[in-house]
Amino acid sequence: MKINDPGTVAEVTAAFERYEQALVANDVATLDELFWDSPHTLRFGSSENLYGYDAIRSFRAARPATGLARTILRTQITTFGREFATAHIEFQRAGSEHTGRQSQTWMNTPLGWRVVSAHVSLLA
Amino acid sequence: MKINDPGTVAEVTAAFERYEQALVANDVATLDELFWDSPHTLRFGSSENLYGYDAIRSFRAARPATGLARTILRTQITTFGREFATAHIEFQRAGSEHTGRQSQTWMNTPLGWRVVSAHVSLLA
Repeated sequence: MKINDPGTVAEVTAAFERYEQALVANDVATLDELFWDSPHTLRFGSSENLYGYDAIRSFRAARPATGLARTILRTQITTFGREFATAHIEFQRAGSEHTGRQSQTWMNTPLGWRVVSAHVSLLA
Repeated sequence: MKINDPGTVAEVTAAFERYEQALVANDVATLDELFWDSPHTLRFGSSENLYGYDAIRSFRAARPATGLARTILRTQITTFGREFATAHIEFQRAGSEHTGRQSQTWMNTPLGWRVVSAHVSLLA
C-alpha cells in the first residue's frame, strides 16, 4: 500500500482545508457534506460523544456560531493507498491558553473524501 | 467497499482486545508490537502529543506502570474493506469521575493489524 502518494495527499489536503474553512465560518452545509452519511460515523468532541451521522448533524445545527476561529499550530496528513487517510492538527483558539488536538479519519467514497471518524480534545 | 465484514470485524476486535489487555497490564512489548513502526504513526494522549513510532515507544518505556486499569463503557469498531478499521471506546478509570475516550485507526499490514493513529482524551 502506497503511503503518501502525492496526488492522494493533495486531494486529502484540499478536503481537509475545505473542512477547516467551513468549521471556522460555521458553514454547516459543508460540514455536513464532508462527514460520511452513515450510522457508523462517530465524532468525539471536546465535550460531547456523538454516534452516527444524524447525531453529528443535530449537534452542528444547534451549535453557537461564534468563537470558532482557531490557529493551526501543526498539521499532519497521512494517506494510505487511494482509499484512506488520517488528518491531525494541533490548534489554539483566540483567548485560550490550551492546545487543542483534532484527529480525523477520511475515506475516499464515490461522493469524494469523507470523514468517517473524528476526535477533538484539549491537551490536559 | 464492504463495511463491517464479519470476518474482518472479528480480526480487528481480537487485535483491539489484545491491545486493551496489554495496556492495563502495561505489557510494553505488546503495545509496541501493535503500533505501526513508522515515522507517520501518531498518538495524541490525554497530556502528550507524540509524532512517530519512536516517540510513542519512548513514552511507553517511561510511563508509570500503575493506575492503568479502566472499565470500558462503550465500544464501537468499524471495518472498511479488508485494509482499514476504526476502534473507539468510552472508558472510566477507577477513582475518576471523568469519562475517557480512545480512538484508534487500524491498518491491515503484512505483519497483522496495526494502530496507525490514536487519540485519547477526557470528556470536558
